[in-house]
Amino acid sequence: MSQSFRQRLWAILEVARPGDHVSRGFDIVLLSLIVLNILAVILDSVPSINRRVGPALNAFEWFSVAVFSAEYLLRLWSAPADPRFAQPIRGRLRFMVTPLALIDLIAVLPAYLPLFGLDLRFVRALRLLRIFRAAKLARYISALRLFGDVIREKREELILTTCVFGLMLLITSCLMYFAENEAQPEAFSSIPAAMWWSVVTLTTVGYGDIHPVTSLGRLLASFSAILGIGFFALPTAILGSGFIEEVEKRKKHHIRTCPYCGREISR
Amino acid sequence: MSQSFRQRLWAILEVARPGDHVSRGFDIVLLSLIVLNILAVILDSVPSINRRVGPALNAFEWFSVAVFSAEYLLRLWSAPADPRFAQPIRGRLRFMVTPLALIDLIAVLPAYLPLFGLDLRFVRALRLLRIFRAAKLARYISALRLFGDVIREKREELILTTCVFGLMLLITSCLMYFAENEAQPEAFSSIPAAMWWSVVTLTTVGYGDIHPVTSLGRLLASFSAILGIGFFALPTAILGSGFIEEVEKRKKHHIRTCPYCGREISR
Amino acid sequence: MSQSFRQRLWAILEVARPGDHVSRGFDIVLLSLIVLNILAVILDSVPSINRRVGPALNAFEWFSVAVFSAEYLLRLWSAPADPRFAQPIRGRLRFMVTPLALIDLIAVLPAYLPLFGLDLRFVRALRLLRIFRAAKLARYISALRLFGDVIREKREELILTTCVFGLMLLITSCLMYFAENEAQPEAFSSIPAAMWWSVVTLTTVGYGDIHPVTSLGRLLASFSAILGIGFFALPTAILGSGFIEEVEKRKKHHIRTCPYCGREISR
Amino acid sequence: MSQSFRQRLWAILEVARPGDHVSRGFDIVLLSLIVLNILAVILDSVPSINRRVGPALNAFEWFSVAVFSAEYLLRLWSAPADPRFAQPIRGRLRFMVTPLALIDLIAVLPAYLPLFGLDLRFVRALRLLRIFRAAKLARYISALRLFGDVIREKREELILTTCVFGLMLLITSCLMYFAENEAQPEAFSSIPAAMWWSVVTLTTVGYGDIHPVTSLGRLLASFSAILGIGFFALPTAILGSGFIEEVEKRKKHHIRTCPYCGREISR
Repeated sequence: MSQSFRQRLWAILEVARPGDHVSRGFDIVLLSLIVLNILAVILDSVPSINRRVGPALNAFEWFSVAVFSAEYLLRLWSAPADPRFAQPIRGRLRFMVTPLALIDLIAVLPAYLPLFGLDLRFVRALRLLRIFRAAKLARYISALRLFGDVIREKREELILTTCVFGLMLLITSCLMYFAENEAQPEAFSSIPAAMWWSVVTLTTVGYGDIHPVTSLGRLLASFSAILGIGFFALPTAILGSGFIEEVEKRKKHHIRTCPYCGREISR
Repeated sequence: MSQSFRQRLWAILEVARPGDHVSRGFDIVLLSLIVLNILAVILDSVPSINRRVGPALNAFEWFSVAVFSAEYLLRLWSAPADPRFAQPIRGRLRFMVTPLALIDLIAVLPAYLPLFGLDLRFVRALRLLRIFRAAKLARYISALRLFGDVIREKREELILTTCVFGLMLLITSCLMYFAENEAQPEAFSSIPAAMWWSVVTLTTVGYGDIHPVTSLGRLLASFSAILGIGFFALPTAILGSGFIEEVEKRKKHHIRTCPYCGREISR
Repeated sequence: MSQSFRQRLWAILEVARPGDHVSRGFDIVLLSLIVLNILAVILDSVPSINRRVGPALNAFEWFSVAVFSAEYLLRLWSAPADPRFAQPIRGRLRFMVTPLALIDLIAVLPAYLPLFGLDLRFVRALRLLRIFRAAKLARYISALRLFGDVIREKREELILTTCVFGLMLLITSCLMYFAENEAQPEAFSSIPAAMWWSVVTLTTVGYGDIHPVTSLGRLLASFSAILGIGFFALPTAILGSGFIEEVEKRKKHHIRTCPYCGREISR
Repeated sequence: MSQSFRQRLWAILEVARPGDHVSRGFDIVLLSLIVLNILAVILDSVPSINRRVGPALNAFEWFSVAVFSAEYLLRLWSAPADPRFAQPIRGRLRFMVTPLALIDLIAVLPAYLPLFGLDLRFVRALRLLRIFRAAKLARYISALRLFGDVIREKREELILTTCVFGLMLLITSCLMYFAENEAQPEAFSSIPAAMWWSVVTLTTVGYGDIHPVTSLGRLLASFSAILGIGFFALPTAILGSGFIEEVEKRKKHHIRTCPYCGREISR
């Protein structure tokens, strides 16, 4: 009977199957809590809001940690209900190293670290780690798998593109360092500084905090910027075509992903 | 006979059928009035022009409201001439909630609100609402349907892309807040402020009002900017392919949309 | 015999046929003169260069005008050698209104206007018109036809896209004017000023001379910038696919355009 | 026997064949040395690092030059082991003018030039030339051939696009010079200065160091920026489609390029 209770609990904790209203309700509660946690982190960072509702946000943080901890422990306890994690010890260990279980652990663990006495600056950084609770959404937005699949499918091309971008970055920043260092020893103080300029230019962001002023520098920058446009073409072609291929494949295999519940729906 | 007059009026008010010169003339007059209204709003906002021709623009506004009000009432009166809105009361109510009828109502209603005594600041905002009279153009530019169809067709993919963009925004802004808050407590004062930076960078707009100054911040910003380029690929692939598909489909079904009169033309 | 001389002259003036070395030589001389004219306009605008070699540039200008005038008159005289312009009067008139002949006329005419006494400021503007001599290159770079064909083929879609861009511009600039006018009465002084911001943002150029500072303004600007990315997708899809289609079509019909001499080459 | 030693040496110096562990080891050592050289150039340019570890970087430079020189001489000596460079003198000369051998020479030659007495400023520039040692990577990243092939395949279209970009640059910069020169004689001082603005705008980088302030200038700039978006479409279409075609072709011919070792792998 404990086994059947464990199976029921596992079913509730997992993403709900169509018709399982209790499990669906649990999913909605947990989803809301994750979204509220994200909002809390954002609001917490605004000084004026922090001053007013800081204690409330703190209380909500502890409440969230308690709920997420309980969720994690219950998942761990009921894991053997899944055939993949059948054995009490080894199954649970195997469950613990699944990506989703690791995310769940990382979502609560940093909250317990200050208890062991750490300096305040580090604690502040830990507080920010709470934002990674957003990763808990991954369980519900299984549509993210589409993106993962596209990136996996086009792995080689993307690595190649990154290499080429790296070489372009290296060459343009060295040339610009040579061209502008004398005229602007502050802005183009070193090759790494020139690299910041290169990234900003090749991606066509163009903040304008660093820009060439000499004729030679402007000529080189012009070629860099035009190269940057050419470079745009590659991720657009690779990711774009990969995305369309993957969507076609799914449509062909009668797989649809509901954008709301994150489920794959067979037609 | 009143019925036949009503039907004639309805035909004139609707977009003209080929050969109906009276209705065509009415369409041109109304179209011109809408375009002049848009121009009036724009000119009204320029202080130097407002000072000189303010009263004339005001008079034109009241004239426009009168014409648009008459147009709306005539449409409402003659609506039962259309089989879809056949019954005198229920038909007219059903007509009133169609999108185009609602747009016509919103185009005139704000002009009457000040009559009921409202504070001036709110009135100023209401004046600006006049710009939504541009939406009245939707009746005539039925080519806009093409865009609507593309967006409807690619609904799921666009929602997915928006979700992914939201996550990227969240993660990059949290990391940048952590990296830059200490060095620039003014610019990166909070996560929402960092979000503004994130949007400006991920879309490669790059105003340069906020930009990272620390090495860690610049490294993170570089990755964000490159991610931004990758992200460009998705709407380009989704909307681009959707647009081409839709145009092909229309060409295949011998449907052409005249870009001038906004009509669909069968070949 | 005069007729055969006229035909020979016409053949020389026109783009050379393969093997006609005299005509080829004339083409190269004229092309060089056009390119030198463009360089002269550019150098003329640099104050330091203008001060040193101004008189030489002036002399070169008069030499060019003389050559281009002679070229135009000879073309006009020999035009009836072409069957399209066979009649002495009507044929020449018909020749005069062809685009290439009009370009040739515009290339020399402004140089004669100061002779009729005009104020200096206008003369300065006329001098700049010389840059349109670059249009004379159109005769030689017939590959430009490819672009013309793509734009003609995709006329409707481009008009549609321009309309949608116009509506986006109108709506985003009105909203931003409303959101930012009070906080930055200088920068967002009127809707036309806000339109400048809109163009800079929707095209993702982002100079940073005008940018929102209020929370509402930044929120609206974020949506505008994301819309801007979406808008990128449309010309990319339209022009990109049109360009590829046109190149395919030409390859299929064994038409190749030499990028150097601008000729279409049949295989 | 010397011949067989020469052949073994040639095999080791060349990129390793599968199973040749000695040659593989040599490749890894050389690759690491190249990467360390790149890092050294970058670190050398940072003043704070240069002050601390300058002598060590200098020593590493001389060590690298020694190794690369030895590598070049050994390659030259063992070249006749390759059937392509069979003859002792003519074969070696033919080897010396291959692109990879020239790169190897350029990688070491500048280091020897200061020995012949040159002024210091020139030496500083020569030091920077070391960055071109990165080109030695070309031997190992044969995947770069994919990019070379795409560019070669689409040569004509890219030349055409560059011509059109040049014309757009010319026309927009002349118009802007005319529109803004009077209002901003400093920023738009000459047509070449306006060209810098044009490049920054047409590529949508938008640093904001030069931007129009007059109404006419802003109108022209708006059209330029929109043209810039249209121009984006062309390299995206050309390079993107070329890249996808080339990848397809390689997949069809069972050619895969390992992104790590840079080898083409037949399946």
